[in-house]
Amino acid sequence: MPELRRDPILGRWIIISKERSKRPTDFLVDKPEVLENGFCPLCPGNEVTTPPEVFAFRDHQHSAANTPGWKLRVVPNKYPALIIEGELDKEGEGLYDKMGGIGAHEVFIETPDHERDFSYLPVPEMAMVFQAYRNRIIDLMKDMRFQYVMIFKNHGKAAGASLEHSHSQLIALPVLPHLITSELNGSLSYYKYKERCIYCDIIKQEMRARHRVVCQNEDFISIAPFAPRTPFEMWILPKRHRSTFREETDEAMLKLAEVFSESLRRLDTCIADVPYNFVLHTGPLRTDSLDYYHYHFEIVPTLTSIAGFEWGSGFHINPVPPEEAAAFLRSAM
Amino acid sequence: MPELRRDPILGRWIIISKERSKRPTDFLVDKPEVLENGFCPLCPGNEVTTPPEVFAFRDHQHSAANTPGWKLRVVPNKYPALIIEGELDKEGEGLYDKMGGIGAHEVFIETPDHERDFSYLPVPEMAMVFQAYRNRIIDLMKDMRFQYVMIFKNHGKAAGASLEHSHSQLIALPVLPHLITSELNGSLSYYKYKERCIYCDIIKQEMRARHRVVCQNEDFISIAPFAPRTPFEMWILPKRHRSTFREETDEAMLKLAEVFSESLRRLDTCIADVPYNFVLHTGPLRTDSLDYYHYHFEIVPTLTSIAGFEWGSGFHINPVPPEEAAAFLRSAM
Repeated sequence: MPELRRDPILGRWIIISKERSKRPTDFLVDKPEVLENGFCPLCPGNEVTTPPEVFAFRDHQHSAANTPGWKLRVVPNKYPALIIEGELDKEGEGLYDKMGGIGAHEVFIETPDHERDFSYLPVPEMAMVFQAYRNRIIDLMKDMRFQYVMIFKNHGKAAGASLEHSHSQLIALPVLPHLITSELNGSLSYYKYKERCIYCDIIKQEMRARHRVVCQNEDFISIAPFAPRTPFEMWILPKRHRSTFREETDEAMLKLAEVFSESLRRLDTCIADVPYNFVLHTGPLRTDSLDYYHYHFEIVPTLTSIAGFEWGSGFHINPVPPEEAAAFLRSAM
Repeated sequence: MPELRRDPILGRWIIISKERSKRPTDFLVDKPEVLENGFCPLCPGNEVTTPPEVFAFRDHQHSAANTPGWKLRVVPNKYPALIIEGELDKEGEGLYDKMGGIGAHEVFIETPDHERDFSYLPVPEMAMVFQAYRNRIIDLMKDMRFQYVMIFKNHGKAAGASLEHSHSQLIALPVLPHLITSELNGSLSYYKYKERCIYCDIIKQEMRARHRVVCQNEDFISIAPFAPRTPFEMWILPKRHRSTFREETDEAMLKLAEVFSESLRRLDTCIADVPYNFVLHTGPLRTDSLDYYHYHFEIVPTLTSIAGFEWGSGFHINPVPPEEAAAFLRSAM
């Protein structure tokens, strides 16, 4: 069974997912090829090769689960980092803290079309992906063991994708990820001082200054953040204050998809086929709406390799000022 | 001029090092080849191809600077991320904070022998590298603009090394790296609660439990940490309480080198030629000895690619329990 362990100094949780390992030399092997003999387990017709679906949008309401006819499918990860059955069994080991690696690990198959990139999904189809994220979060919230649902996408091999067919992932966790805790703490101190949400203030400042804005519509904005870790990093935020993604309406998902797809297409025009990751940052499951936190997506292109300096310090060197990145992105297309 | 920018939510500083950039497509190009036509700028005889040395250990005390005859050489980085001349010019931009990218960026050429890996330096030569680290820290401390000196090594192309000849790097910073601030905060809270250094407690617990110890001598210990980010991560700590590396004696450097080289050789025996980074974590320049902090080195092998999940959350998935990694390492050699 996997295990969750907490770094005693930083409070950072990590997953020890032993099942995945064998001997030291196994780590020298590269990731498995994207397609084995042209076979894709995520394509329609191959539904039996994934664990049974937990959610789907289907063309024909009467098409059966785990058969073709779906527009989007959510299935448990075949090689989960955490497992759903078991007890949390929180315990100490001297000064250390650990618990059972309980969690959900699911895969969103975003489209039946193997050739279609997420960036080039039509807006209503991309909105459907966001609706599926929300629906899965709301469903997993019912499991009181979970504190957080992390949603992320690895696009391209360099960004960690092991399958070519467009997909994203969800991991439900019994703890808060360290970075989310840090964001909550940071935005709470600002709130205590100013009585305003720092993200709302950032949005207002960026809309006035304009030079870091990538694109926007009436409800969402995409910006190159002031202190980006990598070239062409983008954040997408709702303009209204909203702390959790799970509260969003279907209509908001459409507006989000407009800005999201425009951002990714502009990125793809600047740098064709760039690998990237995006991660949803949202409020924890067990708190109501927060006045001081603001959900958003962070899109991080994989352009520079992360070296020791970055690893050991969290101190990133970025060769592209976000104002220039935003200008490149605005003039693309 | 480079710029230091602070993420307003997390307090994380990043360097915008504009000089290094050109157009978006420049980032698609891979790192430069390790050797151009077999020429190595770090080899003896090629001293004129680096900026003039700021420090050296020489065989013959009378051999001239920037000529052969050195055992170890420290030179400014030819492509520095930060520059030494200029003003800090701290200023706000609305709610954001920034300052001039003032700092030092130096390269330690650890040996004249192009073929010699750091791991296989004889112990007295490795100790000399650590002495050079300490001497440079003490020298750079005199510049009151600096708050921290970060020392790190990228070994192997996958870990970010752009030159084959064994070398490490130093970056002097006018701010504290985010991760060091987090460690200081975390270990201070423990100290407030327990009135003991958390690292001292970790060392005691690991010496009693033994199963995560990689190797040790009377003064230093190498452990697989309880919650490692990657397979075969190792920490090397002095057994006595010591908050800053700059206080260490030459004799301690020899003892450190014993444990350091044994750890790296064991790693190399387990997984030949594994790329890795190491980073020195030490107390800030402008504080005296701290009762609650403990300097140490963190060695992080580059075995798993860091995907979106890790990026976005600081939440790492590690397939190898540290107890198993330590057992592999102990049985190697």
